[in-house]
Amino acid sequence: MYVILTYDIKLDETGPRVLRRVFKLCKKYLTHIQNSVFEGELSESQIMQLNSELKKYIRDDKDSVIIFKSRHERWLEKDFWGKCDNKLSNIF
Amino acid sequence: MYVILTYDIKLDETGPRVLRRVFKLCKKYLTHIQNSVFEGELSESQIMQLNSELKKYIRDDKDSVIIFKSRHERWLEKDFWGKCDNKLSNIF
Repeated sequence: MYVILTYDIKLDETGPRVLRRVFKLCKKYLTHIQNSVFEGELSESQIMQLNSELKKYIRDDKDSVIIFKSRHERWLEKDFWGKCDNKLSNIF
Repeated sequence: MYVILTYDIKLDETGPRVLRRVFKLCKKYLTHIQNSVFEGELSESQIMQLNSELKKYIRDDKDSVIIFKSRHERWLEKDFWGKCDNKLSNIF
């Protein structure tokens, strides 16, 4: 399954630590393509695993994670406008 | 076409002004669902229109916009983990 993950971490007093951990965890599973945006191929069980690991850090009343799932990467076109980080995966 | 748009604006001396303009422009076309993430249905001509308007603000060496396009909204599942802004569109 092709996945796009975005997160928004509230930067209060514990926020920076949460952000570092969430970033590190997402990089373990996915490719970092923009500030708080990741993409990649994951199985359903990997998505559930990532979800359970993220839950240890995400504060339900402060932080949000959105995960978009598409059964096939080819069903999704990706365009870059402006700066494009050249080490990114290029799927179109 | 169902669209997800994310942006990353460099917050240097002119960054905040660029951010305000880019945010306002994206809200004109799409629904704001997370910090720098928007979604919605756009035609190809609307996407081109948004692109040409964003180009006036985006600094190619500093800022980046990624746009994911899916021909059908149903080809994409969306999950929220953590905080979910209740005024958001709910497509699954």
